[in-house]
Amino acid sequence: MGLFTRDIKTMDDLFVHTLRDMYYAENQITKALPGMISKASDAQLKAGFEKHLEETKAQIGRLEQVFKLHGVEVSGVSCPAIDGIITEADDVAGEVADKAVLDAALIAAAQAVEHYEISRYGTLVAWAKQLGRNDCASLLMQNLDEEKATDAKLTTMAEGRLNRRAA
Amino acid sequence: MGLFTRDIKTMDDLFVHTLRDMYYAENQITKALPGMISKASDAQLKAGFEKHLEETKAQIGRLEQVFKLHGVEVSGVSCPAIDGIITEADDVAGEVADKAVLDAALIAAAQAVEHYEISRYGTLVAWAKQLGRNDCASLLMQNLDEEKATDAKLTTMAEGRLNRRAA
Repeated sequence: MGLFTRDIKTMDDLFVHTLRDMYYAENQITKALPGMISKASDAQLKAGFEKHLEETKAQIGRLEQVFKLHGVEVSGVSCPAIDGIITEADDVAGEVADKAVLDAALIAAAQAVEHYEISRYGTLVAWAKQLGRNDCASLLMQNLDEEKATDAKLTTMAEGRLNRRAA
Repeated sequence: MGLFTRDIKTMDDLFVHTLRDMYYAENQITKALPGMISKASDAQLKAGFEKHLEETKAQIGRLEQVFKLHGVEVSGVSCPAIDGIITEADDVAGEVADKAVLDAALIAAAQAVEHYEISRYGTLVAWAKQLGRNDCASLLMQNLDEEKATDAKLTTMAEGRLNRRAA
């Protein structure tokens, strides 16, 4: 997108722009997750991140289907939000030596990522419906539901056990 | 925080670090909201952002109380996540000329901010309880509840009326 032109003219342009933002974000997440998997100590947390990496790859596939259904080129646009969230996760993780405290920090970082995605997919589902693209909305809703389920599982892991171990 | 030292040693350090991250984030949000207020066209959306600016100032006051209760210096640490979310909001808003489409973009941007805060306050409440700081948890919970209420109101505005106007 050009910095000095106004490239988003319609709701459809805004939908496609945000779709491309999420396509970039999901791809960045697949690059960040292997580092989080290797840093996690708790076996259940490690397995949770591994499962989410597989889910993320499937979500990218669904986004590609949405691009095709909507008749636009599959591509990403840079997303300073996810870049910032991942940078912050790396910064904090790099400062923690204790394994139990690091697990608590990794969960918090992953939940910040999930919430970004929940917000964007929620928006995309609403816009797709508004644009009469129920086919796209249905695929995006599957991604939204997976992100919500992952966030809920992380909360259960943190509050049930891992925060207690870290404190 | 030092880039080459490991300054977060305990769960308490992690709690204070994340508190400072949110203190910085809320202050950045008070700087960003006036721009969003001036860009919003819909009167209800504009009023919603104005109300949230006042709420954000009160939330900063609660964070200052938490610092004092916990016996640590009131200060912020840079938060690349909120910086990225705000940069992205500015980038997208700068590309939209149509007023109705801009309102839809502003709501989406505000919801990304709310979700970041919901994630961080959720984490902080859980950690405060784990550390035996129910007094801090109670103040943080008030901020969390306000962010959730704001997010829900934005969803209602978007899905009830503003997306339809933009489409």
